[in-house]
Amino acid sequence: MKFVTNKVGREIPEELNGKKLIPFTGAGKGPYTKRKYAPRIRKTNPGETKLIKSLRKAIKKGELSDGGTISFHHHFRNGDFLLNMVCEEVAKMGLKDIRLVPSSIQPVNKEILPYLEQGIITEISCGTSGVIADAISRGKMERALTIRSHGGRARSIENGDVEIDIAFIAAPTADSYGNINGVLGKYACGSLGYAFPDAHFANYVVAVTNILVPFPNNPISISQDQVDLVVELDKPIGDPKGIVSTTLRVTRDPKGLKIARSCIDVIKASGLLKDGFSFQSGAGGTTLAATYFLKDYMKAKGIKGSFGMGGATEALVKMLEEGLFEAILDVQTFDTVAVKSLRDNPRHIEIGGSQYANPLTSGCAVNLLDSVILGATEIDTNFNVNTSTESDGRIMHGMGGHQDTAEGAKLTIIAVPLLRGRIPIIVDKVVSVNSPGENIDVVITERGIAVNPESKFYDELSKVKDLGLKTIEELKKEAEKLIGGKPTKPEFTDRIVAMIEYREGSVLDVIYQIKE
Amino acid sequence: MKFVTNKVGREIPEELNGKKLIPFTGAGKGPYTKRKYAPRIRKTNPGETKLIKSLRKAIKKGELSDGGTISFHHHFRNGDFLLNMVCEEVAKMGLKDIRLVPSSIQPVNKEILPYLEQGIITEISCGTSGVIADAISRGKMERALTIRSHGGRARSIENGDVEIDIAFIAAPTADSYGNINGVLGKYACGSLGYAFPDAHFANYVVAVTNILVPFPNNPISISQDQVDLVVELDKPIGDPKGIVSTTLRVTRDPKGLKIARSCIDVIKASGLLKDGFSFQSGAGGTTLAATYFLKDYMKAKGIKGSFGMGGATEALVKMLEEGLFEAILDVQTFDTVAVKSLRDNPRHIEIGGSQYANPLTSGCAVNLLDSVILGATEIDTNFNVNTSTESDGRIMHGMGGHQDTAEGAKLTIIAVPLLRGRIPIIVDKVVSVNSPGENIDVVITERGIAVNPESKFYDELSKVKDLGLKTIEELKKEAEKLIGGKPTKPEFTDRIVAMIEYREGSVLDVIYQIKE
Repeated sequence: MKFVTNKVGREIPEELNGKKLIPFTGAGKGPYTKRKYAPRIRKTNPGETKLIKSLRKAIKKGELSDGGTISFHHHFRNGDFLLNMVCEEVAKMGLKDIRLVPSSIQPVNKEILPYLEQGIITEISCGTSGVIADAISRGKMERALTIRSHGGRARSIENGDVEIDIAFIAAPTADSYGNINGVLGKYACGSLGYAFPDAHFANYVVAVTNILVPFPNNPISISQDQVDLVVELDKPIGDPKGIVSTTLRVTRDPKGLKIARSCIDVIKASGLLKDGFSFQSGAGGTTLAATYFLKDYMKAKGIKGSFGMGGATEALVKMLEEGLFEAILDVQTFDTVAVKSLRDNPRHIEIGGSQYANPLTSGCAVNLLDSVILGATEIDTNFNVNTSTESDGRIMHGMGGHQDTAEGAKLTIIAVPLLRGRIPIIVDKVVSVNSPGENIDVVITERGIAVNPESKFYDELSKVKDLGLKTIEELKKEAEKLIGGKPTKPEFTDRIVAMIEYREGSVLDVIYQIKE
Repeated sequence: MKFVTNKVGREIPEELNGKKLIPFTGAGKGPYTKRKYAPRIRKTNPGETKLIKSLRKAIKKGELSDGGTISFHHHFRNGDFLLNMVCEEVAKMGLKDIRLVPSSIQPVNKEILPYLEQGIITEISCGTSGVIADAISRGKMERALTIRSHGGRARSIENGDVEIDIAFIAAPTADSYGNINGVLGKYACGSLGYAFPDAHFANYVVAVTNILVPFPNNPISISQDQVDLVVELDKPIGDPKGIVSTTLRVTRDPKGLKIARSCIDVIKASGLLKDGFSFQSGAGGTTLAATYFLKDYMKAKGIKGSFGMGGATEALVKMLEEGLFEAILDVQTFDTVAVKSLRDNPRHIEIGGSQYANPLTSGCAVNLLDSVILGATEIDTNFNVNTSTESDGRIMHGMGGHQDTAEGAKLTIIAVPLLRGRIPIIVDKVVSVNSPGENIDVVITERGIAVNPESKFYDELSKVKDLGLKTIEELKKEAEKLIGGKPTKPEFTDRIVAMIEYREGSVLDVIYQIKE
């Protein structure tokens, strides 16, 4: 196999999973597919019903066969049962070599592990965490995992890099003709945005629900003309408790609070924090704290922002309700307060995965972000960010909208502790690259802030004395000093088990099976 | 040229406009295109603006060239200025052989006549009325007009029978990134539903507005990821007065009122008028009257319907507000009361052209109609309906959703006077066929009601003595007796100037140039 070194210095094989790979040559450099994917036209005749009660029938009607591809969305997050249920049915039907295109694999999906080992599921494309990610790191899946950002996933579905035979859409409510939304009923999970590209571009679309409402369901997030079947099940498609992740708490750790405060200091120093400001942050403890600090500051200064985005949280909802943002753009809803807000507040707007972050559209929302605060498992001294692998080499996470927002936002901040336990976060070389350094402006730790010399904010931020900037090398050395040396490197076999795509479809990195 | 006789007895040429034609073989018989159209992928980069102030620049950026195709929607109806403005610009730029795909040509579009005569516009696909329709009947356009239903238009765009180079979308409000709706501001026209397929499947999309609102516009009817440019103009894109047609008045004519009452009698007799009833009617004086009679009856009997559809009118809005319908599905809004309702009432739902009536989707709303009341210019004794040509042979109208609802609804009623002036409406052979007789259940005139012997309601309705049914031949003879003979037939040349497609893409009929 021939390898090519890409722009972030990674060796990319010419081919993987039977497809030619295109090495990453820079953000915004393509490849550019010329045409959107052309899904199969289906037809439901007058008088024909779409309502059935069996997943097996749906799989048969969608004509899934060996080697076929099925997709899922993860808005139920760690409370999702549908992916497991469909895979169980697929296994019982004796199908094999099935490829999954979920928007994420969550710890709850550990149930599908036997199917990986048995060759029933042979390929997954998405961010993956938990047992399944670990198993892939250990070589348990036949073909390589493709890790895509949320925007990259939407792009791959819209441009046909992925061809979905059947999209399964977990629908908190549906009418019998397939109009669905995620905001009503006891299974409400909020936005269904990641499933929008699936609904538009899959070759067959199956909505699965526990709550059938009279026609027409309203609001309509995904509409009947895209949905071929409605499967009504008694068995819950999701656990309402799992919908709301309990990890979404504001940090109380002094280090985390210090980092959060520094984030706001940097945003202020950038000159971006004025009327019309737009912002995304994740839902980790530190970034949530930063969001609340931002809220207090904007309120005190009377700054009226444009929009808040990202996993929608109570923090963003409060800012919307206090008039600090004009709107929330919501592709994924993270807590019950935000679910209610999406349902009731017209300024809290559901958006699809492409509208959110697909780089190959007429314009996605990440392009309009002033600032984003993101996390990392590691950062190297070229500002390349790793979110997928831990420093022991195992795949542990996906990357959400990291790549997308990092490229789109004017000011991209990585907020991380200098050490996690005894493990330094800033290193010479990250295990794998999810976000290229060229998109990263600032790294903020509790021990200091480093600005990327390539950032257009470098001069501006360097002038601000109070920030006490350090170089990224200084931060790295400081961490090494604290642990008394260089961190140990993970060891790998020579088998590639995953690749990380850049959002437009080129390849940033590959990940090897860990040596055990 | 070889001709083939189709299922409604019309001679269809093998080829027209350089394309092979498929003769109509029956409702629901295809042709079925296998794949949706794959439009060009465009890309708007971070930092790039979409906002410009010139239609010419938009036409250039969309790379329109000779032989190209541009589309429009007619929600501004006879108050639309955009189609005229774009065509004027196209002419000034020296482009020629341009094909138009509007959702309708209205009398106000008479301004484009010189461009037809000069070969600047050589082909139109849509329903056409007024001066342009007349000119086409007289042979003034180079290629043949293709008359499609609203569902047929959506289908032709989605399946690639029509390839749109640039879709121009008249947007009552837009933000600078292309999120648009039709319900806000002084140019509010209501639903933008007919433009949804254009936004999804055109190769370039230009929103044109007079009212730019802060990002993000809300609600979002057509979203930024589909819109390439936003043209902000000072010159109005429409005349608010024209948005609301003044012809939408309930009839006071005793004949019309009698027909309207008979419509409700027939619907009652059909057994469909019970809880869950769904209904569409047009906005003509007689059908509006029928809607009000329906309202009174449902209210008196405590019947709670499912949905009302069609051009949304004050009459439907009242039914919604009084709880007689669960919802209005609105693809086109006909008056200011309905515009406000769409804006303010969550149960008044905007739907796209495909969701409304595209036969080649996973399920359009016309499939769910219990009953529809429609008009006609002529009906023949096989129940074939003409809506496009007058009895003098000239093209005068399109057909809206006639074909679509006639096929979709369980009970399709044609409500017409026996005579218009001295012209009989029921004839041996209609000038041209828009809706095949197989989809028509009942013809209602002020002189009697005829049920199609092929209708599944024939036995049911024949039992009801009070309806005083006649045969369609009896009605025809009655009309002939009143005018003292057979109506005169129009005369044509042997040049085909238009074809009428069935909603799935086969050809129902062709129309010849009139002899002058």
